[in-house]
Amino acid sequence: MFDSDVGRHMYKLACKLFPYNRSLTGNGVRKTLKDIKKILPDLTVFEVESGSKVFDWEIPDEWECQDAYIVTPSGKKICNFKENNLHVVGYSTFIDDYLSLTELQKKLYSKESLPEAIPYVTSYYKRDWGFSISHRQRQELTDGQYRVFIDSKHKKGYLTYGEVVLKSNAKVRINKEIFLSTYICHPSMANNEISGPVVTTYLLKWLKSLKNRRFDYRAVFVPETIGSITYLSKNYQKLKENVIAGFNITCVGDDNSYSFLPSRDGNTLSDIVAKHVLKHHAKTFEEYSFLDRGSDERQYCSPGIDLPIASIMRTKYGEYEQYHTSLDNLDFISDKGLYGAFKALALSIICIENNKVYKYTNLCEPQLGKRGLRSTIGAINNMTQFNKDVINILAYADGEKDLISIAIEIERPLWELIQVVDKLVEHNLLIEV
Amino acid sequence: MFDSDVGRHMYKLACKLFPYNRSLTGNGVRKTLKDIKKILPDLTVFEVESGSKVFDWEIPDEWECQDAYIVTPSGKKICNFKENNLHVVGYSTFIDDYLSLTELQKKLYSKESLPEAIPYVTSYYKRDWGFSISHRQRQELTDGQYRVFIDSKHKKGYLTYGEVVLKSNAKVRINKEIFLSTYICHPSMANNEISGPVVTTYLLKWLKSLKNRRFDYRAVFVPETIGSITYLSKNYQKLKENVIAGFNITCVGDDNSYSFLPSRDGNTLSDIVAKHVLKHHAKTFEEYSFLDRGSDERQYCSPGIDLPIASIMRTKYGEYEQYHTSLDNLDFISDKGLYGAFKALALSIICIENNKVYKYTNLCEPQLGKRGLRSTIGAINNMTQFNKDVINILAYADGEKDLISIAIEIERPLWELIQVVDKLVEHNLLIEV
Amino acid sequence: MFDSDVGRHMYKLACKLFPYNRSLTGNGVRKTLKDIKKILPDLTVFEVESGSKVFDWEIPDEWECQDAYIVTPSGKKICNFKENNLHVVGYSTFIDDYLSLTELQKKLYSKESLPEAIPYVTSYYKRDWGFSISHRQRQELTDGQYRVFIDSKHKKGYLTYGEVVLKSNAKVRINKEIFLSTYICHPSMANNEISGPVVTTYLLKWLKSLKNRRFDYRAVFVPETIGSITYLSKNYQKLKENVIAGFNITCVGDDNSYSFLPSRDGNTLSDIVAKHVLKHHAKTFEEYSFLDRGSDERQYCSPGIDLPIASIMRTKYGEYEQYHTSLDNLDFISDKGLYGAFKALALSIICIENNKVYKYTNLCEPQLGKRGLRSTIGAINNMTQFNKDVINILAYADGEKDLISIAIEIERPLWELIQVVDKLVEHNLLIEV
Repeated sequence: MFDSDVGRHMYKLACKLFPYNRSLTGNGVRKTLKDIKKILPDLTVFEVESGSKVFDWEIPDEWECQDAYIVTPSGKKICNFKENNLHVVGYSTFIDDYLSLTELQKKLYSKESLPEAIPYVTSYYKRDWGFSISHRQRQELTDGQYRVFIDSKHKKGYLTYGEVVLKSNAKVRINKEIFLSTYICHPSMANNEISGPVVTTYLLKWLKSLKNRRFDYRAVFVPETIGSITYLSKNYQKLKENVIAGFNITCVGDDNSYSFLPSRDGNTLSDIVAKHVLKHHAKTFEEYSFLDRGSDERQYCSPGIDLPIASIMRTKYGEYEQYHTSLDNLDFISDKGLYGAFKALALSIICIENNKVYKYTNLCEPQLGKRGLRSTIGAINNMTQFNKDVINILAYADGEKDLISIAIEIERPLWELIQVVDKLVEHNLLIEV
Repeated sequence: MFDSDVGRHMYKLACKLFPYNRSLTGNGVRKTLKDIKKILPDLTVFEVESGSKVFDWEIPDEWECQDAYIVTPSGKKICNFKENNLHVVGYSTFIDDYLSLTELQKKLYSKESLPEAIPYVTSYYKRDWGFSISHRQRQELTDGQYRVFIDSKHKKGYLTYGEVVLKSNAKVRINKEIFLSTYICHPSMANNEISGPVVTTYLLKWLKSLKNRRFDYRAVFVPETIGSITYLSKNYQKLKENVIAGFNITCVGDDNSYSFLPSRDGNTLSDIVAKHVLKHHAKTFEEYSFLDRGSDERQYCSPGIDLPIASIMRTKYGEYEQYHTSLDNLDFISDKGLYGAFKALALSIICIENNKVYKYTNLCEPQLGKRGLRSTIGAINNMTQFNKDVINILAYADGEKDLISIAIEIERPLWELIQVVDKLVEHNLLIEV
Repeated sequence: MFDSDVGRHMYKLACKLFPYNRSLTGNGVRKTLKDIKKILPDLTVFEVESGSKVFDWEIPDEWECQDAYIVTPSGKKICNFKENNLHVVGYSTFIDDYLSLTELQKKLYSKESLPEAIPYVTSYYKRDWGFSISHRQRQELTDGQYRVFIDSKHKKGYLTYGEVVLKSNAKVRINKEIFLSTYICHPSMANNEISGPVVTTYLLKWLKSLKNRRFDYRAVFVPETIGSITYLSKNYQKLKENVIAGFNITCVGDDNSYSFLPSRDGNTLSDIVAKHVLKHHAKTFEEYSFLDRGSDERQYCSPGIDLPIASIMRTKYGEYEQYHTSLDNLDFISDKGLYGAFKALALSIICIENNKVYKYTNLCEPQLGKRGLRSTIGAINNMTQFNKDVINILAYADGEKDLISIAIEIERPLWELIQVVDKLVEHNLLIEV
C-alpha cells in the first residue's frame, strides 16, 4: 500500500533538520522550511511582521543567537550553544558578564531526575536570559567567578510559516478540506518536534501521488501556539467552512507506543477515524482526554474556532522522561517509529477519502453463489473473510450509514473493505448514494 | 401458567418429524407440513412454481431422492441413505458409477474433529453430488473400486411452505401483527432444525387457546433463506405495515443454555422483550451480536425489509460441536429443553400482549392501607413483593412509559406485574392510556 | 468556608429535640418547631384541621399520649413510655386492662436480631395499640397476668408543619426556588430523624447569612408522607413552576458513610450537583437507585408532581442495623457526622448558586503570561492547579455549557473554580451569558 522506503527517507530528513536552532521566529525556521520546500515545491512561505496583532497576541520580535557559553573559574567553556542549542534559554537577551556561582545558579535550569539531560527552557514573552545544563554537570560546579556570554539580539522582523494546499484531483470534487498542522519552533529535539514536520512532509508527498483525491488538503508548518494563532487569525473563517477533518501532527517518531488525543468535541469524523485506525493498526494505544492536550489543538478546538482536529501520536508529549530535553534525540526516534505514524495518518486519510454512503440495490440477500461471491457448497465453516465482508456490508448498506460506521459496526478496518465494496459496485449490488 | 405436558407433546412430535428427508423443496417438506396441519388445522400450504423469480433469486427445481449408497470393494453397503438421509449431499444429482478410492475421496465429506458424526452438506445451487460419512468410517476405507449410487432426480415442481394466521380475539383489536418464522428444510437433525417447527406448532396451539389476544399472529414454516425470501417477495409490504414484533424460531430444543440474537436494529420491541424475558426466565444467557446471525433474520432484517425480528434460542447454531451433523439428534434435545424455549417465547408474547401504557389517577402516593394494599402496621421490613410492586408501578405510571419500560426499570418480570396492574385498575388507581 | 462550630451547635440542638414524643400530629411536633423557631425566627407554623382531604388522604385525628407502661405479674413496671417513648406503638388507643402472657405477646413488638433494641412501630391509620420491647426483655417475661396501661387519646385537632421562605438578596433576582424538605414525626431517634431538622435549621441559618443569593429558598419541616402530601396539595403548582432543584434532608447525622438517592428522573440539576459534590467531598459514597427510596421523595417525585428532589445522606435509612430502633440514638450521630452532611448540602447549594453560563470573549487562547495568569518561563512541569483551571475553563466556556458541566468535564469541584472564574471575569476574558 505504501512505499516501504518512506521510513528511511523520513529518518534521513529528520537527521538533516534536527540541529537547526528553531525558535518562534528567525533563521532556524526559515532553514527548516527551505529544506522541506526541496521535497514539496508547492510549499508557500509566509512572513508576518513583528508587532502585528493576532487575536489576543502580538507577533514577537525576531530572535537571533550567534553564540553562547559559560566559562568556569578554571577557564573551561561549558554550556556551549554551538555544541547543543538547548544550552541557551530560548529568547535569551544579550549578556556578557561575570557572576559568582550563587548568582549563576539563579540563571541555570537542570532536571534532577534525568541528570544527563539538558532541559529545554524558554522565556518568549518576558525579556530574560539563562542557561540549561545537565544536572550532573551543574553539581560539579565549584565556587568562583563565571563568565556568562550570550551573543543574541531581538529585532523587528517576522514570524515565518509554511503552507501547502493540494486541490482535489478527482473528477467529482467535494470542495471540502482535510487540514494538517505541525510545528517548527523547537530546537534540537526529535520526537517532539522534528518528527512532526518530517512525517507531514512525506504525507503530503504521498498525497500528491494519490489518484482520485476527493478532498482538498491544507497543511501548515507553524511555530506552536503563536503560529497557529497567527494562521487562524488570517484563515479561521475559511477553515470553519471547509474543514471536515484534520490532525495535529506531533510526537510521531518513536516506536514505543501509539497515542490518541481527541478534539474538544470528542466525536468528530477525525476522532472516529483516528480511533478506528489505531484499533486495527496498533496492537494497543493510549487514549488520552482533551484535558491532556498541550499542542495546537488548544487553538484549533477553542470555543468559536471549533475545528475537528485530533491527534494520532506515537509517545505523547509529557508522557516520556526524555520529553523536552536533549535526550529526546535522534536515537529516541527511528525509521520504524516514523513509518508507523506515517501509516496511521495515511490510513486515516484513506478512510476519510473512502467514507462514502452506499445502498444495496435489491431486497433480501442476493444470491451470491451464482456470482462467484460465495462457495456453492453449503457446509461447515466455509466462509472466508471476503464472504463475511460481502454479506455484512450488504446487510448494513441501507443508504444512510457511511462506510466508517459500517466498518466499526462489523469490526473490520475500512481500508480492507474498499476492494469488497468495489466488487459489489461492479456487480451492481451496491450504489453510492 | 402453561400446560406442563407441552414439553412431552413437543418431544413426541419431534420424534415423528425427525426422519423425513426435508430439503429446500419436495415431499419431505410436504409430509412435515401435513403432520403439523393435524395439530393446526388453520395451516395453509402454499406452493410456488420452480423458476419463479423472487427478488434476486429463482425457485429451484424440486429434488427427489429415492435411494443412495456406496458399495465398498468388499461388497459392503455404506453411506446408506435409507439408514440416515444425511449421507447424501443435499440436491445431489443422479449417479451410478464405479470409482477408485482416490476419485471417491473427492466426493466425500467428513468432520475430523467429531469422528463419529455424519456432517450435513448441501449443493443447492450448483449441480453436483457427494456423500457424507463419519470420519472414523472414512479412515477405514481401503483401495479398490467403489460403486456409488444415488437414485435422485431434479424436476420442475414447487417450493412448499405453510402459513398460519390467527386474528385477534379481543373486543378491541389493534390490527397489528406479531410474526413468527421457523424453517423446514433440514433432514434428520434435532436442535437445528426440527425443534423450530415443533415449538412453533405448540406456540400457535397455545395462542389459539389464549383469550383476549389484542394482536394478530402470523406464523410461517418455510425452507430457510429461499423460503423466507419467497415469502417476503409476496408479503413484505403488508408485513412492514403491520408487524410490531416477531421471532425467528430455531435451535429451541436442547437444555444446555439460552441464547439471544438481536435484530439488525438491536433495539426493537422484540429485542427489548426478549432480553427482559431471558433475564428473568433463564439463569444466564448468551447475548450474541447481529454479526453472529445465520438464519432468516438475514432476510427479515435486511435493508428495506427492516422487520423487528429477534431470536430466542437454546444453544445457538454454530455454537455446539454437534451442529449440522448426525449427532444433533433426538438425544441432543429433550422435553425440558423444548419446554424452556416454548416458555421463553410464550412469555415474550405475554409481555407484548400486556405492554400497555397506564397513568396514575391522582397526585402523590395513594393511601394503600385503607384499600388493603399495604400492611397498616408501620414497622421494620413488612413490605411484601406485592406491596413493592404496587408502589413502584404507581411511581412510574406517568401515562408515557409502557409496562415493559416500567418492568425493566423496577427490575421485575412483566408477567408477574399483570395481576398487580389489574388490581390497581380495579381500585381506580390506574387507567389505561 | 463554613463556621467550624456548626457541628457542635447542631449536635447540641439534636440533644435538645431528641426526647420529644413526635408523631404525625400533636405537641411533640409543636415543641420541636417552637425550638427551631428560636434559631429561625422566619419559621411560620401552619396547622391543618383533622379530617381535611389532601389528595387521596385525610388528615388524621391528633394523638396525645400522657403515660404508658406494663406491670408484670411480679409488679415490675416495664415498657415505660416516660423512660423511652418508643415503647408505645405510635397512635396507640387508650387501654387499661389485664392480659395473660399469651394475649400480651400478640401486642408486643421486638427485634430478634438486635436483642437490646426497642423497635419503632406505628399504627397510624388503623386504630390499634401495642408495646415495643427489647427482645432480651421479652424473653424474660414469665406466665401470669399483666396490666397494660396506655393513657392516650385521639381527638379532632390539627396536623402541624413549619415553613421558612428566604427571598433572594441578590441585585438581580431569578425568581426560581431551591426547595428543602425534612421531617419531624419520629420520636426519640437520632440519625433517622432528628439529624434532618437539625441540619436543615443550620443550613437555613447559614443561607440567611449568605450574600448575593440569586435564588429563593423554601424549606419545610413536615411529618413524613402525610405532611409532604398535605404541603403539596396546597402548594404543588407553585413548586412545579419555581423549583429548579432541591433536597430531601434525612439521615444526616452519623459519620459512617455518605449516600446518594436520585430523583425519579435521575438526571435533574439536583442529581447532577449532588453526585458532583459527593464525588469531591466524600472519599466514597453509596449510590442508590430510586427503587431504594423511602422518604418524601416518594411524593415530590411522583408522576404529575415531578419535582427535582434528590437526597444526600450519611448512612441511609434501612441500611444500618440500628435503623428504626432505640439504638439509633445520640451516640450513633456526632458533631462530625452532622457537619459532613451540612457541608455536602451547603456545597451543593453553592454549586447551584454559582452555576452560571460563561463565554470566552476572544478567539484562540489568550496570552496569559502578560496578565500574570501563567508563568513566563516555558519549562517542564510549571503549571499550577490555578494555571490548569484557567486554561481549562477558557477552553470549555463556549457560552452554552454551564459551570457545573465544565466542572464535571474538567474533573474539578465547582466551588474551587469560583475564584478562578471571578479572576477571568475581572480580566475581561469571560463574560456571563
